Amino acid sequence: MLDLEAIRGAAERIDGVALRTPVLTSSTLDRDTGTTAFLKAENFQRVGAFKFRGAYNALSRLTPAQLATGVAAYSSGNHAQAVALAARLRGTKAVILMPEDTPASKVDATRGYGAEVITYDRYTGDRVALGDQLAEDRGLTLIPPYDHPHVMAGQGTVALELLEETGPLDVLLVPIGGGGLMAGCATATSHLHPKTRIVGVEPERANDTQLSLRSGERVRIPVPRTIADGQATEIPGELTFAVNQRLVDDVVLVGDDEIRAAMRFAFERLKVVLEPSGATSLAALLGGTLSGRVGVVLSGGNISVERFRDLLA
Amino acid sequence: MLDLEAIRGAAERIDGVALRTPVLTSSTLDRDTGTTAFLKAENFQRVGAFKFRGAYNALSRLTPAQLATGVAAYSSGNHAQAVALAARLRGTKAVILMPEDTPASKVDATRGYGAEVITYDRYTGDRVALGDQLAEDRGLTLIPPYDHPHVMAGQGTVALELLEETGPLDVLLVPIGGGGLMAGCATATSHLHPKTRIVGVEPERANDTQLSLRSGERVRIPVPRTIADGQATEIPGELTFAVNQRLVDDVVLVGDDEIRAAMRFAFERLKVVLEPSGATSLAALLGGTLSGRVGVVLSGGNISVERFRDLLA
Repeated sequence: MLDLEAIRGAAERIDGVALRTPVLTSSTLDRDTGTTAFLKAENFQRVGAFKFRGAYNALSRLTPAQLATGVAAYSSGNHAQAVALAARLRGTKAVILMPEDTPASKVDATRGYGAEVITYDRYTGDRVALGDQLAEDRGLTLIPPYDHPHVMAGQGTVALELLEETGPLDVLLVPIGGGGLMAGCATATSHLHPKTRIVGVEPERANDTQLSLRSGERVRIPVPRTIADGQATEIPGELTFAVNQRLVDDVVLVGDDEIRAAMRFAFERLKVVLEPSGATSLAALLGGTLSGRVGVVLSGGNISVERFRDLLA
Repeated sequence: MLDLEAIRGAAERIDGVALRTPVLTSSTLDRDTGTTAFLKAENFQRVGAFKFRGAYNALSRLTPAQLATGVAAYSSGNHAQAVALAARLRGTKAVILMPEDTPASKVDATRGYGAEVITYDRYTGDRVALGDQLAEDRGLTLIPPYDHPHVMAGQGTVALELLEETGPLDVLLVPIGGGGLMAGCATATSHLHPKTRIVGVEPERANDTQLSLRSGERVRIPVPRTIADGQATEIPGELTFAVNQRLVDDVVLVGDDEIRAAMRFAFERLKVVLEPSGATSLAALLGGTLSGRVGVVLSGGNISVERFRDLLA
């Protein structure tokens, strides 16, 4: 059950383990956008993205028996490192399924946290089936990337912390991939400040949640092509969609060029590094016509110098 | 007179105007270096560098008559924008002398704060003489980039804030250009924690302070070639050197490649943007053999995507 109490419980569990990330402000940004913007900088979170919150909360809810055997996850991205680090901190073992074309740096980072990495062919293998099989074979508990109440509750602490610092907001911008971050943040926000307008942000060609909200049921889209790889989902999560359908007021879309411009703005004006998915909310703010007090979740900053260079070439 | 009281006075004057920048920590950095490091992130300061502190403090000490006519400064870098913004905030006029080959973005930023920019040929013009002449002709008060007690006192608030958060440190690493940041930080630190080892950091080929400390008097070196343009001074300041000669325990040098590596580490691991001069202290930490609790001043983050790309190519 995802409610404010679940998110407050997650906040207690991650206290002193996850970082309470800073809320950045910028007079330049405010002048350029005509808003008063509060940027929750989850790029500074452990493992470089909000994912650590949900993973650690989920691991903290396991029974001693589950911890004794370990956990499994499938991810090519930030969830992999989040589960790996959370497992190490909780004294258990993590096995992570990653596509075999995952950049070596990400595989190394995941192994660096002590996880076992198993690779699979993303074109022929079904990661969900492989993950289920792995979990069953080895008695591991699967930690899904978003579609799980404990994961969503953990991600909701992002909004909880933000609102504790800012007080009521007129608008909250949250990137949507599978929808876990949004489900948690929307739950916290709608309880604490029901009048805040909750707006999701998706990449133009990865608008599965926007389409699903419009049609009233989960819609599957073709594998999306976007530089925002963390949001390249084909279909919203089942649990996340049920929450977001109830609480999200609107979804706005941003193009790759707008994401690039937001990454540049973050670099040159805010002096912070954002990965493409981490910059979509900022892109929505910069390209939008919002006013008032706007919360913006910068979800992550995991990008190499080389990829950054290529994207902004 | 530069003492702890002067720095505390500066802290009161800049309170609520300059940002109290965050102190970053990183378990990766601690593991890699064998230290417990505290990074004072002045790249997040207004105008993107510590320079705003000294400029604003100096402007705050002017008489109403001085404010009525205005201020002048010469700088191709962060001091220009710092004086321009401080002047706007204090309701006075700033005239900034900049070399005519200054990147347009820096000239625009300085003008953007409302300053008048006058350019000169850096190969034929003597900026000190030009600045003095300008100040005299127009009755302006010259705000020097480092060699002034009010400027040094303002820069000292960097260490004051850092030490308030960290308590005693074993080592403090501070970049040295003209020496104003170091003079202020060394003064604050030596008063508050006399046992802290105070270490300056210079680019390999801009080691005018190191040579001056060794020879016991200010030494002039040829125009230094280094990517750390903010530290490319030919000779230490007169006032700053008097302080640093008394309080600095050691100066270490870092090469351009080490600076590049530190900028990359900051980008990929810390998710923060540092200009070359802003990364020299971190370079010293990464390349050194320090231990214990180490304070590291990250002095600025003003760099375009294009220059960053070129430097790390």
